[in-house]
Amino acid sequence: MNALLVIDMQNGCFQTPRYEKERIVSNINSLIEYFRITNQPIYFIQHNGFKENYMFPETEDYQIIKELHKDISDNFIEKTVNNAFYETKLEEKLVKDKVRTIYITGLATEFCVNATILDALNRNFNIVVVNDSHTTANRELMNANKIIEFYNWLWINLTPTKGSIMSKSVKEIIDIKKEKE
Amino acid sequence: MNALLVIDMQNGCFQTPRYEKERIVSNINSLIEYFRITNQPIYFIQHNGFKENYMFPETEDYQIIKELHKDISDNFIEKTVNNAFYETKLEEKLVKDKVRTIYITGLATEFCVNATILDALNRNFNIVVVNDSHTTANRELMNANKIIEFYNWLWINLTPTKGSIMSKSVKEIIDIKKEKE
Repeated sequence: MNALLVIDMQNGCFQTPRYEKERIVSNINSLIEYFRITNQPIYFIQHNGFKENYMFPETEDYQIIKELHKDISDNFIEKTVNNAFYETKLEEKLVKDKVRTIYITGLATEFCVNATILDALNRNFNIVVVNDSHTTANRELMNANKIIEFYNWLWINLTPTKGSIMSKSVKEIIDIKKEKE
Repeated sequence: MNALLVIDMQNGCFQTPRYEKERIVSNINSLIEYFRITNQPIYFIQHNGFKENYMFPETEDYQIIKELHKDISDNFIEKTVNNAFYETKLEEKLVKDKVRTIYITGLATEFCVNATILDALNRNFNIVVVNDSHTTANRELMNANKIIEFYNWLWINLTPTKGSIMSKSVKEIIDIKKEKE
């Protein structure tokens, strides 16, 4: 079984301008639609920012952005650090859903997306990085588009664990899957 | 107790030119001397590259570079992926040595150093990134000095777990410790 992970796509995170928000949202919505139609589980990760003194639960900032097509039947997992596995029920739920391969999307590329990818590998899941469905902000040392490009290169050059890691675009995922059907 | 981690400073890794090798080696040797004098454990991590088809154990490539002042009394831990904790005895040995804070050095910045820092945080160790004692190579998308600068910024902006993370230069580590004595 595959699962779609959508990391930190919350109102509070978009107070910082994120690179190509509209395109990323549209791409993630395409994946959500595909995973829903094929009865594969969708996991929304929500950051509880009490450590950073923002994005507190039950505030507007904490909510998933309204443009994303979430459903009450989806899974919602709260995290408190960069890594979505740290002291959460994510692994337990993935195992219960018999998930072996995780498709990773969301933000921010070099923080929560990267930390979650690395720990998913530690836990021997197979990873598909969706290379056109994660984003970040311009940083003082590097612009967002360069960060995204660099991490897309980095991830496919990691040494695999018992889990594998590969990179695909939304189109590759949906087209390949459609061919299989 | 503190521990010094020296990651992948092996002959095989230096077949690729690494940014400011001499300065990094000299800085790590200063830390080795300091940790040895203060009776704090030193851990050399060695990559067994069988998955990448290079740096096999018992070859010259696998050996720690001769310029580093290792001692047979140090700890030597073999790893097979980027993260030095993955399927190794590292955590068990650190716990046995009552280590709470790990000083991290070596290479490559964006691969094994980053993966090991993130998993040390997952395991609730306190981290001191030694910001002038890790290195990497020029990559097609980014030069080594930019990668090092970016990761030194990134690490101190991670959300801490039960473990903390900070960044110090060799001089700050040795001078501060000397003041305390």
